[in-house]
Amino acid sequence: MPVETIDRLQQELSAEGARVRADVDSFFGMILSPTGDSRLWLYEAMRHAAIGGGKRLRPLLTLGASRLFAIDRQRALRVGCAIEAIHVYSLIHDDLPCMDDADLRRGKATVHKAFGEAAAVLAGDSLHALAFEILADPATHEDPWVRSDLVLELARAAGPGGMAGGQMMDLAAEGQQLDLPAITRLQQLKTGALIEYSVEAACIMVKMAPEARTPYRGYARNIGLAFQIADDLIDHSGSEAAAGKPTRRDATAGKATFVSLLGEDRARQQAGFLVSQAIEHLSSHGSEADLLRAIARFAIERDH
Amino acid sequence: MPVETIDRLQQELSAEGARVRADVDSFFGMILSPTGDSRLWLYEAMRHAAIGGGKRLRPLLTLGASRLFAIDRQRALRVGCAIEAIHVYSLIHDDLPCMDDADLRRGKATVHKAFGEAAAVLAGDSLHALAFEILADPATHEDPWVRSDLVLELARAAGPGGMAGGQMMDLAAEGQQLDLPAITRLQQLKTGALIEYSVEAACIMVKMAPEARTPYRGYARNIGLAFQIADDLIDHSGSEAAAGKPTRRDATAGKATFVSLLGEDRARQQAGFLVSQAIEHLSSHGSEADLLRAIARFAIERDH
Repeated sequence: MPVETIDRLQQELSAEGARVRADVDSFFGMILSPTGDSRLWLYEAMRHAAIGGGKRLRPLLTLGASRLFAIDRQRALRVGCAIEAIHVYSLIHDDLPCMDDADLRRGKATVHKAFGEAAAVLAGDSLHALAFEILADPATHEDPWVRSDLVLELARAAGPGGMAGGQMMDLAAEGQQLDLPAITRLQQLKTGALIEYSVEAACIMVKMAPEARTPYRGYARNIGLAFQIADDLIDHSGSEAAAGKPTRRDATAGKATFVSLLGEDRARQQAGFLVSQAIEHLSSHGSEADLLRAIARFAIERDH
Repeated sequence: MPVETIDRLQQELSAEGARVRADVDSFFGMILSPTGDSRLWLYEAMRHAAIGGGKRLRPLLTLGASRLFAIDRQRALRVGCAIEAIHVYSLIHDDLPCMDDADLRRGKATVHKAFGEAAAVLAGDSLHALAFEILADPATHEDPWVRSDLVLELARAAGPGGMAGGQMMDLAAEGQQLDLPAITRLQQLKTGALIEYSVEAACIMVKMAPEARTPYRGYARNIGLAFQIADDLIDHSGSEAAAGKPTRRDATAGKATFVSLLGEDRARQQAGFLVSQAIEHLSSHGSEADLLRAIARFAIERDH
């Protein structure tokens, strides 16, 4: 890629990234307006987790994919926020003492540390339900087929066949030495399913036939794996300050990762290969795919 | 009500109740077929909680309401199972050590006691997602408007504006002396919203205008409260064997209940009054409403 192109993509991603972070914060600020009754604590817990943190990779992917098909930005943003609500709920629950027992997330205290365990469980459950409320709301799309399909596929990506199932696999893997196919499968469920959905949601919004979605799913699958490798690299060698959470937890827990299996150099190569494959899937598109290209290109350099 | 009518209603409820319990078990048995990988433990935890317990009040209400409008039984059953999945997930999470810390539920060990806390959190999360997957599946209804509306209203009933918000209020009430309006509001969110949805779902399935749903919502609201009072009475005076869980927990936790506020006799009277009001809401219907009448009539005599 010519240097000018790289510069342009990086600038585009940086501008759109800032815009998406602001828009997601403002959307959550709106739907999580605290009530005046004893649920205040619950709303504060949700706001703590949902507002002002993270790179918002998933909404960014949905917005990037929605550009391919000229989907209205506000609608794509609502879908992106529904996905982010699922992601945030999963972080809250994964951080619980009975799961990863984490004190720090996105540079702040985890929800159970700041609000107590009971509120953390309920804040996660509430965001989980809100995600589906957002998608099924006619404001997200005027076509009920689209709304219903968005719900169906998100439920599949989040449930035992996707994210929640992957988290179970991850817990079961503690102290076990998984091989590369097993780690890949685990990652495809735990984080891959939701990342894939973030891109596929745009296909659903334009009622694209499932068989035509192959390149977009391919793109998402590749960057999902690339992100996981990047995450493992940060956990392996990064600083707590850069990661916004404690690092080297996987090694401490005796868990196999892409880095422990491949070594640092081969893991980095593999991530680079996945990124170029991801970009290759977009070859039929012109500049409307630049945001997705930029996300892929800079994926391995960023925490998310 | 003449004695013969009472007998007939009781027989009808008893027959349909047994049928619904078998059908719900068989539905969960089907959708929770264990996988051959390391998610087996998660599926076993879900099956432990979802199969073979409870009176299945919510699916029974959906089936009862679906008779009013001659809705296909299989479809109503799918919707009822989605609601039951939400109910079961909430029981799993409410039983966690950080919430009610319960060891026994429906006469069996709670999920975290039998499978560990991490699996309990994930089993709840998985059932939560599955509920929306069931509703958004075209097998539930051929009209996408109906599917999308079923999802929208269930998400509202389950989220911070409904069940999860009510559970937060309940936790916040510990050690506080709530008054009758506050307890009623808490109950309407914590258990009332999902019970109301169980009846309203049938109205959604026939695309009834929201303003025409008033009597059905009124019925559901009344029996929701009657059930809660019945539950408080069981907790107050019932045996652990009858309740399937430890009793007198509310008193121990210093929580105000309908029974502690009204006294046992007035609470019983109030429940009876709510039941007759509930039945009154069905006055425009003939024998097709008998199942709903029977549920109301015997509500206060049953654990649920």
